[in-house]
Amino acid sequence: MGCTIGVDVGGTKIAAGVVDADGRIVDRIRRPTPAASGPAITDAVCTAVEELVARSGGDVEAVGVGIAGFVDDGRSTVVFAPNLALRGEPLRDRIVRRTGLPAVVENDANAAAWGEARFGAGRGTRHLVCVTLGTGIGGGVVLDGRLYRGGSGVAAEIGHLRVVPDGRRCGCGNQGCWEQYASGRALVAEARDLARGAPAEAELLLKLAGGDPDRIEGPEITRAALEGDPAARECFRTVGRWVGQGLADLAAVLDPERFVVGGGVSDAGDILLEPVRRSFARHVTGRAVRSLADIRGAELGAAAGIVGAADLARV
Amino acid sequence: MGCTIGVDVGGTKIAAGVVDADGRIVDRIRRPTPAASGPAITDAVCTAVEELVARSGGDVEAVGVGIAGFVDDGRSTVVFAPNLALRGEPLRDRIVRRTGLPAVVENDANAAAWGEARFGAGRGTRHLVCVTLGTGIGGGVVLDGRLYRGGSGVAAEIGHLRVVPDGRRCGCGNQGCWEQYASGRALVAEARDLARGAPAEAELLLKLAGGDPDRIEGPEITRAALEGDPAARECFRTVGRWVGQGLADLAAVLDPERFVVGGGVSDAGDILLEPVRRSFARHVTGRAVRSLADIRGAELGAAAGIVGAADLARV
Amino acid sequence: MGCTIGVDVGGTKIAAGVVDADGRIVDRIRRPTPAASGPAITDAVCTAVEELVARSGGDVEAVGVGIAGFVDDGRSTVVFAPNLALRGEPLRDRIVRRTGLPAVVENDANAAAWGEARFGAGRGTRHLVCVTLGTGIGGGVVLDGRLYRGGSGVAAEIGHLRVVPDGRRCGCGNQGCWEQYASGRALVAEARDLARGAPAEAELLLKLAGGDPDRIEGPEITRAALEGDPAARECFRTVGRWVGQGLADLAAVLDPERFVVGGGVSDAGDILLEPVRRSFARHVTGRAVRSLADIRGAELGAAAGIVGAADLARV
Amino acid sequence: MGCTIGVDVGGTKIAAGVVDADGRIVDRIRRPTPAASGPAITDAVCTAVEELVARSGGDVEAVGVGIAGFVDDGRSTVVFAPNLALRGEPLRDRIVRRTGLPAVVENDANAAAWGEARFGAGRGTRHLVCVTLGTGIGGGVVLDGRLYRGGSGVAAEIGHLRVVPDGRRCGCGNQGCWEQYASGRALVAEARDLARGAPAEAELLLKLAGGDPDRIEGPEITRAALEGDPAARECFRTVGRWVGQGLADLAAVLDPERFVVGGGVSDAGDILLEPVRRSFARHVTGRAVRSLADIRGAELGAAAGIVGAADLARV
Repeated sequence: MGCTIGVDVGGTKIAAGVVDADGRIVDRIRRPTPAASGPAITDAVCTAVEELVARSGGDVEAVGVGIAGFVDDGRSTVVFAPNLALRGEPLRDRIVRRTGLPAVVENDANAAAWGEARFGAGRGTRHLVCVTLGTGIGGGVVLDGRLYRGGSGVAAEIGHLRVVPDGRRCGCGNQGCWEQYASGRALVAEARDLARGAPAEAELLLKLAGGDPDRIEGPEITRAALEGDPAARECFRTVGRWVGQGLADLAAVLDPERFVVGGGVSDAGDILLEPVRRSFARHVTGRAVRSLADIRGAELGAAAGIVGAADLARV
Repeated sequence: MGCTIGVDVGGTKIAAGVVDADGRIVDRIRRPTPAASGPAITDAVCTAVEELVARSGGDVEAVGVGIAGFVDDGRSTVVFAPNLALRGEPLRDRIVRRTGLPAVVENDANAAAWGEARFGAGRGTRHLVCVTLGTGIGGGVVLDGRLYRGGSGVAAEIGHLRVVPDGRRCGCGNQGCWEQYASGRALVAEARDLARGAPAEAELLLKLAGGDPDRIEGPEITRAALEGDPAARECFRTVGRWVGQGLADLAAVLDPERFVVGGGVSDAGDILLEPVRRSFARHVTGRAVRSLADIRGAELGAAAGIVGAADLARV
Repeated sequence: MGCTIGVDVGGTKIAAGVVDADGRIVDRIRRPTPAASGPAITDAVCTAVEELVARSGGDVEAVGVGIAGFVDDGRSTVVFAPNLALRGEPLRDRIVRRTGLPAVVENDANAAAWGEARFGAGRGTRHLVCVTLGTGIGGGVVLDGRLYRGGSGVAAEIGHLRVVPDGRRCGCGNQGCWEQYASGRALVAEARDLARGAPAEAELLLKLAGGDPDRIEGPEITRAALEGDPAARECFRTVGRWVGQGLADLAAVLDPERFVVGGGVSDAGDILLEPVRRSFARHVTGRAVRSLADIRGAELGAAAGIVGAADLARV
Repeated sequence: MGCTIGVDVGGTKIAAGVVDADGRIVDRIRRPTPAASGPAITDAVCTAVEELVARSGGDVEAVGVGIAGFVDDGRSTVVFAPNLALRGEPLRDRIVRRTGLPAVVENDANAAAWGEARFGAGRGTRHLVCVTLGTGIGGGVVLDGRLYRGGSGVAAEIGHLRVVPDGRRCGCGNQGCWEQYASGRALVAEARDLARGAPAEAELLLKLAGGDPDRIEGPEITRAALEGDPAARECFRTVGRWVGQGLADLAAVLDPERFVVGGGVSDAGDILLEPVRRSFARHVTGRAVRSLADIRGAELGAAAGIVGAADLARV
């Protein structure tokens, strides 16, 4: 069986790759996401596909696109992508027309979840929830071995579970959304607060950020935590507790066999995952009688989106 | 095609019925649940089934049981039923051995959800969430037209979503569970508080309860609300807001086409459902761009469990 | 200068003592609180006073009573004492008439606070807040060296600060009151939950309570914590965090020089006070620029009420 | 008796006035606050005072300054004023040296509270709490007829009571502070959210802001509410509920006879105060047996700071 192309369209870059039937990326390219609106993005996606097809010598059977936005139930139109200024873009049809290849469009977190489910940390499970801790929180749900998309294609918007009534305001217009407490943005806010309020404790964090609390970003926190910095570890514990609580809520609804935790925040590995597991075990309902879901770090990293989208393009 | 028997085993009564292929109950009986432990309950279930079989003239093909507890993945053993003092009871095998009929065992909220999905307010949907507002909150989830049971059979324990950190203590050992805010018990607590703190406003409520706040129960609140009592209506609004918020959380994860709301609290009809719908519309994430799930009252009432269990017993 | 009598009227016992001008108790008696209503309690208080007067050889100048209830602004009438079934009881006048001694009546937490302020852990401060962590939380506030009673005599009901919106229901009719999180009752609930949910971790706690989670009471938790039991210490840390947060709220309003923490929960000493201090230091507003209030354990124990009431009876 | 000068030093302007013994402003000037740090501000204050003295023909006996910051216990040094870049500024001594007049320095919210207590809505009370709902929340507490300053001069930082655990982040470094829910900033955030999420309901609000949700400010909301706009009224109800809850917390601690509510948000009068009173009456502890504090709008408006500071300068 031949290869398919997976494309991952994010707010800053478009990453595309030729992927074989075993989920291996055999060729890849990366382009900045055009700042202009709809047609320019569609055009950039098509150009990337054409380039990969040309380089592949024609051994490409289909195209799958994962994109940061709501996608319609027919996996065809981008209903709304706030960070990409897309609304009602018939992305699939345009790709088909231009490249002549069959195509599917999927939400990017769904595509990444599918990648992990098929070829990464989710292999071998029937019921799986993938949680991507990036700037916000993305999610993908695989049930009975199939990607679950919901009644209108917007299932798994798990970052917007409300975890604190009247809590922090979220870009979605609600207050107290999980992603305000358990994402990369939350981790950074925690670290900056700590560096401002207790600079002595956050010495290494501050040093890595050139002394300016406002320049602390995720990578500095991860690095400091890996070097054993107590302030950075405290930040991961705080965020980890919120992650674990949210997984407990998801387990109450979905009872998955496994959670796969990815995204930039998960680069810290067990420094994040240990508090997540502890918090999960402490909060999940029925913990005394149920079998506890497994919680693992993602394995495919940033490639999950490409690999998952490519696989979704297969019949 | 012939009939099957559905049995609904609750904390106080066992209700069983012969149900035809269209979900109609053609014969039914009702027995108190034995206070004694495991074997007595199993025995009572079998006796009820035998009696119905005898009365039916033999036209029964299978037995389905819905029971208030955790049921194993094989739909066979009651892993744990706190209110029935059952633990590890091999209910299915015992029924099969004694009655000679094929049998399945299911969680009671799941069975009721399946009843509504097939023959009640959920007809015609592929993705459905049923919420039963009784003393606590039970739930059942139908995805892609099939009952969703999760990795270990305990999916849809939706009453234990945490909606308030450090909130009210729940019998499950956690704090802030949804059912502490949105169930019949919550409605009653609200009404009693109101009757104690502002007796003048709660005049009718108090009158219906013989003047004693502690004797206000669900039916009094519903009756007072239906008669227009402002205090009772206020209680339904408060509980309705919490119900709607929880549905918004479930929609973020599951994106169902419809919610069916049943249980004793839902007897108040739109007095409950209107605040539920308003709260849902206000809190569901992506409300500006998504299609809003439909929220309906259950149609089968207390029969949903019998009808659903009976249908699950068909192949 | 001569002695005065202090009386501490609680739900279960009446304790009275003859106290000298240096706050030393030179004679004392203790009686059960009569179960019957108003007059019986007043009678028991008068009898205790008469007995002490008789034993003292007449060297008594005045009587001060601290009582668990709301006392009017004239320090004369018990407006409402829910646990004593008193309402509108003119306690002062009755004592004066019967014993011939001048008298004052005060809320019991206020009296205890005054005792600590004058002769205990509050000596030498002008602005002091005393917090009594018993079954609930009582409070007394000394400002500019005087007991602060508020506009209608009910100041310092600090146990009813709301710390969690929609939190645990409180006997006062509100939800989320501080005393539901930071009192002895909260400590016990925490320990029982832990013993039920994780019996292995709570081994010593359970042993001290004869194996029954529901028989764990405050003294068992304190003893286990003093013996190093990790589960009991965890309970004190949880409660200590809530205590510290509440003190931070009080500091935002009152900016006292010192907090004195008493009541049964404080018998654990630094096992409680260390997490209290950490939580306070972390949550108090302006912590980088303000001077942090001192947090000390009470010194007078159960005698604080007698000593304080006796001193309040002096001109 | 002669006049004194009151100066109100805020983040954007310095307002100063000559005030007679009855609290009447007989002359006033207004200057922008210098952007530069400490000395420039002190200089601007002195210049304003000198100018008023010159115009008064010498009939000025003393100077009182209210300033947005922490002032030391001796009412002399500005310990820290985050919005004015002052730290350790010996403001009183500099004014005395330069103008030859006796001077006192006070926190601006305290000065305003004193103004209302002496000549405004607080007249005739002994125990009073003033709450200023501006961008944040300022507070002043008058107990036994005297301004209460606390152990280190920072009492009445009531905007930083924590009302929501893990709530919205506050500039003070904490989370869930009252001023994130009940201030002008909270009102504006509420209105913008509403205008974004439900533009049809917020038609008038949007019109007043030229169609741009991000240009809605306090005055637009007040104007729309006064014209009966339901969306604006809803915003005041939401904020009013939080205000009333906070007053209930303050009453639990301080039991004042009256609350005076001022600041820009209070320009809406009863549109704000009615929901405040309802929420207060519903949440204050002991509401069934206590006398409820009076809640009134401030009377002196922006002049309260000048009038109060001037009066504090009298012996």
